[in-house]
Amino acid sequence: MKYEGKTVLEVGERSALAQTVAHFKPVASTIIGSGDDSAVIGLSSNRFVVTTDSMVEGRDFRLDFSSGFDVGYKAAATNLSDVAAMGAQPVALVVALLITRDTKLSWLEDFAKGLQSALDELAPSAAVVGGDLALADQIVVAVTAHGDLLNQKPILRSGARPGEVLAVAGTLGKAAAGLSLLLHEDKSLAASYPELVQVQLRPRPPIATAVSAGASAMLDISDSLALDANRLASASNVSLRINSSDLQGYVAVLEQAAQSVSARDGKNLDPISWVLFGGEDHGFLASFPKGSVPAGFKAIGSVEAGSGVHLDSEPLAAKGWDSVSS
Amino acid sequence: MKYEGKTVLEVGERSALAQTVAHFKPVASTIIGSGDDSAVIGLSSNRFVVTTDSMVEGRDFRLDFSSGFDVGYKAAATNLSDVAAMGAQPVALVVALLITRDTKLSWLEDFAKGLQSALDELAPSAAVVGGDLALADQIVVAVTAHGDLLNQKPILRSGARPGEVLAVAGTLGKAAAGLSLLLHEDKSLAASYPELVQVQLRPRPPIATAVSAGASAMLDISDSLALDANRLASASNVSLRINSSDLQGYVAVLEQAAQSVSARDGKNLDPISWVLFGGEDHGFLASFPKGSVPAGFKAIGSVEAGSGVHLDSEPLAAKGWDSVSS
Repeated sequence: MKYEGKTVLEVGERSALAQTVAHFKPVASTIIGSGDDSAVIGLSSNRFVVTTDSMVEGRDFRLDFSSGFDVGYKAAATNLSDVAAMGAQPVALVVALLITRDTKLSWLEDFAKGLQSALDELAPSAAVVGGDLALADQIVVAVTAHGDLLNQKPILRSGARPGEVLAVAGTLGKAAAGLSLLLHEDKSLAASYPELVQVQLRPRPPIATAVSAGASAMLDISDSLALDANRLASASNVSLRINSSDLQGYVAVLEQAAQSVSARDGKNLDPISWVLFGGEDHGFLASFPKGSVPAGFKAIGSVEAGSGVHLDSEPLAAKGWDSVSS
Repeated sequence: MKYEGKTVLEVGERSALAQTVAHFKPVASTIIGSGDDSAVIGLSSNRFVVTTDSMVEGRDFRLDFSSGFDVGYKAAATNLSDVAAMGAQPVALVVALLITRDTKLSWLEDFAKGLQSALDELAPSAAVVGGDLALADQIVVAVTAHGDLLNQKPILRSGARPGEVLAVAGTLGKAAAGLSLLLHEDKSLAASYPELVQVQLRPRPPIATAVSAGASAMLDISDSLALDANRLASASNVSLRINSSDLQGYVAVLEQAAQSVSARDGKNLDPISWVLFGGEDHGFLASFPKGSVPAGFKAIGSVEAGSGVHLDSEPLAAKGWDSVSS
């Protein structure tokens, strides 16, 4: 174990990169992978989609909660969900990674394994095709993800029409519940609900379900159901009505965890707040013509003329995660 | 001036982004710009090139040397040069920007103006199509740039063949000279050589020249002529010979600045070291069949059988900038 316990700085950039890149594997669309000035990616048509998202140590993840594998997995998953939300099949990721002087080579390799594992599990059509490694005061991961529209039109946020059905795919509130458990001073709580913690650390958006959904409008629920529903309503110039009865299943699976937190804090935590206002599940919110909701999506409401979002008859505020002011 | 002197945090993410994104303009290939989950980019064929590079405050730039405009300009220029080095025409940039709690909105706007200005001047075919803004302990810019191969084959580092001519486009050593002047304790030095400082702060790689060059092999000179020539030699499995006589013009324009530094330091600084071992000019090193060196490129040597790089008859070590260990 030549490199055991060594930092990336001690090993040197070139050796460390060689060790790390070895964990990535090309896919059919990877015409030229990493090693030249740019990568070259093949598509089924002459258009591609692109999105970028960054994660910052101390704000988006903590090294005492997340392993390198977790950080890599989540960085891939959150960007793949933005590609899939356009109805595009993920094909390529490039990764700008900033590490610190103390970052171990083993962390870097673990990070690479997490990235590749997310691709294997969520989007086997995609590869890491390039990246950049540099030093900073804290770990930062900036992933840019690319998708192939497969000769289909992109699914925009602006396509929802009155009379359509509002539906979601993926989990709702589990990532927020997991974060509450991780942050709780009673450290035994997180260990009691490993599935919720797992969704926070390694979200598993149903990428293939979204890509093939054929939605009229779609976005990925990154900041909260309430906030992202308001974005969809605004972009489509419609009103969205969410039925609380359709959210009961999402609430039910969080009730026990909410009770555990409530018992320790001596106050009543309603798990509906995780479902409505918690982010980071990275599921999908979409609208479909009546009768066209595909398998993997669950109807939670309707698209109507007007503006804003209502939960039953009450206005639902655009409350959720804000990457700058939170 | 509603926002005068305010930080991005005080203004809030949404307002700050609206103010900033207003400085970007779409181009013909921008099918869907920023505002949805991903952007959609049109191409002339079903392949695209992609590259990513990051710049970190305190390592790649200093806020006392560089304005927001400079940082934006350089972040665009360095990534555009990686796209052009593949023989691809730049079409789209996405920008992950990390700012601090103290970053003023005016800095952010200035940064956006610098990005757009680099596109206007160096690659008017390209647009900023998306981004991500978040908080960190220092400013970090991670740009991912995309190019259209215009139905041509990509120009790789591996295409140089014995018998070809080695040539460069762009400046050599000016960026390194500019950095030496900026870092010198005699602060009057930088003011005496504004052109050299300008190349360091806002490099202007000849993008269009590279895209249309039709080279056999090409890369952008980011880390140093010596280091990047060794990369080209290694990828092409050839030996490169650089003629010192062909570098005289590059050295001559740096001599006065070198003398000024030498006079203050009481030792003899040979400006050839800036030309050979200085990075950040982001010009291009390429090989061409004999008689095919296009306008804008200047022959500096030859491609031969063998390995490694020689300056006249002496081996030229792969010395230059290393983003992790430097």
